[in-house]
Amino acid sequence: MNFQSKLNAAWLRTHSLVCVGLDPEMPKLPARFQNRPDGLFAFHKAIVDATHDIVCAYKPQYAHHAALGAYDQLAAIIDYIHTRYPNVPVILDAKRGDMGNTAMYLAKEAFEGFKADAVTVSPYLGTDAIEPFTKYADRGTVLLCRTSNPGAADLQELLIDGEPIYMKVARLAATKWNGNNNVSLVVGATAPKVIADVRAMVGDMPLLVPGVGAQGGDVADAVAAGRDSKGVGLMISASRSVLYASNGDDFAHAARGVVEQMIADGANC
Amino acid sequence: MNFQSKLNAAWLRTHSLVCVGLDPEMPKLPARFQNRPDGLFAFHKAIVDATHDIVCAYKPQYAHHAALGAYDQLAAIIDYIHTRYPNVPVILDAKRGDMGNTAMYLAKEAFEGFKADAVTVSPYLGTDAIEPFTKYADRGTVLLCRTSNPGAADLQELLIDGEPIYMKVARLAATKWNGNNNVSLVVGATAPKVIADVRAMVGDMPLLVPGVGAQGGDVADAVAAGRDSKGVGLMISASRSVLYASNGDDFAHAARGVVEQMIADGANC
Repeated sequence: MNFQSKLNAAWLRTHSLVCVGLDPEMPKLPARFQNRPDGLFAFHKAIVDATHDIVCAYKPQYAHHAALGAYDQLAAIIDYIHTRYPNVPVILDAKRGDMGNTAMYLAKEAFEGFKADAVTVSPYLGTDAIEPFTKYADRGTVLLCRTSNPGAADLQELLIDGEPIYMKVARLAATKWNGNNNVSLVVGATAPKVIADVRAMVGDMPLLVPGVGAQGGDVADAVAAGRDSKGVGLMISASRSVLYASNGDDFAHAARGVVEQMIADGANC
Repeated sequence: MNFQSKLNAAWLRTHSLVCVGLDPEMPKLPARFQNRPDGLFAFHKAIVDATHDIVCAYKPQYAHHAALGAYDQLAAIIDYIHTRYPNVPVILDAKRGDMGNTAMYLAKEAFEGFKADAVTVSPYLGTDAIEPFTKYADRGTVLLCRTSNPGAADLQELLIDGEPIYMKVARLAATKWNGNNNVSLVVGATAPKVIADVRAMVGDMPLLVPGVGAQGGDVADAVAAGRDSKGVGLMISASRSVLYASNGDDFAHAARGVVEQMIADGANC
């Protein structure tokens, strides 16, 4: 089953638009995970076990693992999800981007090494940086369009003939880059108007929407702006607010509670 | 010694503007390196031993190692260069880019994990994606400005008030982002006019110039367009043309020959 089909099925099965980001920050983990070599994996495993039936995707973060040299634990949690919950798509959030030949190696790392169903990719280098990812027709390429951070304004919002750069990215994604129908876009929840504009441009393309929870974006506003014509089409992503809902023994239960609240707040389908 | 000082000293010492990229492609390596667990490291060690006195920097490629899961061999070659040739700066070519908190983890991976002197970073996410790197005041942040690939035209050359996006990046790099005087820019050799325009914008900021050799950029044209006011300021980077000059037993000698030819062709100072 390809990424798009897996995601569609997850929306139908779970009635949830929530994507949980796995962004481990060692000092925030419950103490018992901090001093063991498989601490990140064990923590994420507990989060996944507690939430797998109410999320449409998981999004493990490359950087948070890489800073600790924990490449093996990143691979292990992806493998665990595939094995235990094979219907839940996994998006590797690695924001890759390099030219032609080198991009092919990055795609190989993400799709063959880490075995991710999809990976986030920066569009700054253009077509030949993107095609090596989209060539994997059964996997998803999730392009950065308008990110949720303050610095997004520095380049992404600059106007070209009255249109911001992120809309040029959305246009290219919807036309030139989507020949295999496997492109999605990252559009931050911190700007619901932008979500609506991008949705109008790209039809039913899936949108990955980070920036709710710790970053302050509103779930209901983001969902209202971004549903596709079938009432789905969104991965509303939260990380810190879910993972660190509690640092006591109830952390996994508390994480599930945050996901349930997001669904109740509007991230449902 | 910080990255900028180390690079300045390397130019003065070697009279070379050549940077060698370490982009391993397993099928192109001499046969004896293909079936051993430390093959990439051993190949690069031979290349480094043969060229260390005539290069201003090495630029190991993250992706080419990552696709093989060879994170340890990437760390090992950087460690080898630091130990054996401590005056040669090492730029990790990883084209990182993520927001605030996550960028901090990527910087930690590059500078503390891999111990690189500098790392390449995409500017698409803006200021808060860049500051976590530039905060490491003794390390270099090498921002993508105008890359050497065909796809560069898709976004980087779009005009904003008559000025291409890559010049906006150059302007931000020279002003807003360079408070620690540790920013450099990537400008492809395939467009010498662009190198000259960027040089005029950024003063004596170092420019990393890929795209000579296999990609077809001309060394003399790139150098003529890009020297700074002191006659240096350039890292003219070649990878495949150096690494795969021969796949026989003379590969390291042949690699040195290609670097010497680049110097003779104009990559000197």
